[in-house]
Amino acid sequence: MRVLYFLRQKTFMNKIALAIHGGAGTILKSNMTAELEKEYGRALENALQAGWQIIQSGGNSIDAVETSVCELENNPLFNAGKGAVFTHDDKNEMDASIMDGKTHNAGAVALIRNVKNPIKLARLVMEKTEHFLLAGDGANEFAREMKVEFAADEYFFTDFRYKQLLEAREQGIIQLDHTIDEPELIEDVQNPKSKIQNPKSKIGTVGAVACDSSRNLAAATSTGGMTNKRFGRVGDTPIVGAGTYADNQTCAVSCTGHGEYFMLTAAAYDVAARMKYKGASLIEAANETIEHLRLIGGEGGLIAVDDFGNLALPFNSEGMYRAFITSDSEISIEVYR
Amino acid sequence: MRVLYFLRQKTFMNKIALAIHGGAGTILKSNMTAELEKEYGRALENALQAGWQIIQSGGNSIDAVETSVCELENNPLFNAGKGAVFTHDDKNEMDASIMDGKTHNAGAVALIRNVKNPIKLARLVMEKTEHFLLAGDGANEFAREMKVEFAADEYFFTDFRYKQLLEAREQGIIQLDHTIDEPELIEDVQNPKSKIQNPKSKIGTVGAVACDSSRNLAAATSTGGMTNKRFGRVGDTPIVGAGTYADNQTCAVSCTGHGEYFMLTAAAYDVAARMKYKGASLIEAANETIEHLRLIGGEGGLIAVDDFGNLALPFNSEGMYRAFITSDSEISIEVYR
Repeated sequence: MRVLYFLRQKTFMNKIALAIHGGAGTILKSNMTAELEKEYGRALENALQAGWQIIQSGGNSIDAVETSVCELENNPLFNAGKGAVFTHDDKNEMDASIMDGKTHNAGAVALIRNVKNPIKLARLVMEKTEHFLLAGDGANEFAREMKVEFAADEYFFTDFRYKQLLEAREQGIIQLDHTIDEPELIEDVQNPKSKIQNPKSKIGTVGAVACDSSRNLAAATSTGGMTNKRFGRVGDTPIVGAGTYADNQTCAVSCTGHGEYFMLTAAAYDVAARMKYKGASLIEAANETIEHLRLIGGEGGLIAVDDFGNLALPFNSEGMYRAFITSDSEISIEVYR
Repeated sequence: MRVLYFLRQKTFMNKIALAIHGGAGTILKSNMTAELEKEYGRALENALQAGWQIIQSGGNSIDAVETSVCELENNPLFNAGKGAVFTHDDKNEMDASIMDGKTHNAGAVALIRNVKNPIKLARLVMEKTEHFLLAGDGANEFAREMKVEFAADEYFFTDFRYKQLLEAREQGIIQLDHTIDEPELIEDVQNPKSKIQNPKSKIGTVGAVACDSSRNLAAATSTGGMTNKRFGRVGDTPIVGAGTYADNQTCAVSCTGHGEYFMLTAAAYDVAARMKYKGASLIEAANETIEHLRLIGGEGGLIAVDDFGNLALPFNSEGMYRAFITSDSEISIEVYR
């Protein structure tokens, strides 16, 4: 009887919870104005509130994460949607993915152009196709067939992002979103992936994870990729298991960071694997994954939630734009360590 | 002293080993002629021997897996390279990936056209770029810049594959390589991924895993995707962690099967995670991953090797084209259960 009671109590103990991120990297207070800090704070709060209204009123986690990510995509402050950085050839190429922890269905798009909200297109891949990942011209053709909202190049154009491209192109480097001060190009023969500028930068991705009142989990991630990237580079964001993962049995995860390292370690799935196979708690698992990334030189962070509404938001960079709320705590908005 | 002796013995006990696969699926003896069976056998043996010569003469595992996969790509019997199936719009779009278990470096390409050996291009991504995955037009541009060998459409054209496309297009289905007898289109509202024809088919991918005399592991996988596929669908083959994975600390893995399920479960990395986090042996881990796939409806198989040269080749389909050899066993070539 006691066990039963305990189990029952556990069943009813879950909180609803939502966390979002707006990218991780070298975000230093010394480089931030009070005004910009406020702007980021407002943007994060708006995006969080939009998703929170949904799960607070009994809606589901997949709608909540999609809505929060849409808000972040619509804000030029973040490297996703409207704020996407420029590729080498002056274009905005975007990636996004979404996963439903209940059905294990997922959808993702890579190298998308002129789609206002890539995360909505990822959801359509999830719901309307038999596939998980569509890329390139074919994915853009799918977008036209689905009649999603398109936006002209001007919508994605921001002086700030274009200046980043010109700078990066001049220096011949690829940037993980914007750099601060003197960018540093480290070419390490021991580690061929290090041709990417060692990320003295904000690593631009946005994402959301949620646990709703039915204890269903969901995760969504969206990015504009790397400034000055070439050759159709695809990072971790549209990869189920690397940038995004959700399974009601373990957790929902959205990552942000130096994508190649997150792919190499299947970072989002790695959090779930540590919970499943060695019995780690959400917080232990998430911390271990980020610590392992640090050890191999992978900068970034992640947000994760389990089906009790516990949250983890570890990162190994200077900062990560993040906000979260649960049914037993107020909104928190944080940037630095 | 005893422990030390044991450890030493273990150190010197490793075998060199190589395994390859040519796809899994509904491969029934009743559908096979003696002549075709011989042809498959010869093709598998040639591909295995080509890689084996390399590691047997002290070469490294990454060269061995690339060479074996090249041989399979050059053979029209397998759905990769020359034998790639046709997309909805009469094209051959190919994916490939390769990973080095020592350096954890990896390279992959998706939606490649007219490249004779996609696996060679994947290796160039690994060695010449800071990225893991290049897709679509950009990846094709990279191929031109790298001056890899191209082949005209006619090279990839085979009557057999084109007939598959015409049949599939007529029936409005997407095929995981060739179907046998009456194809069955199951549309299950509970499982939106099931719009893909339930694979009464050979699931077309080729791959190789190797352990060389320095105990370095490597894996490589290559595919022509699905017959009649649209919209730039990308499966598990070019995804590090899903279709291919290699880490000297655990194992090297190459998968073949219904790609969406392998992506969902990060199947290749899942084998490594079971070894790392719950102490499973290579064989236990590989079997568990394939059994889990079976439970969720994902048909296919994988080949895996650890740094002692142990091999595992589990599959949950009717058959898997496969061949393997180690320094203490002869060549084995197998097709059915």
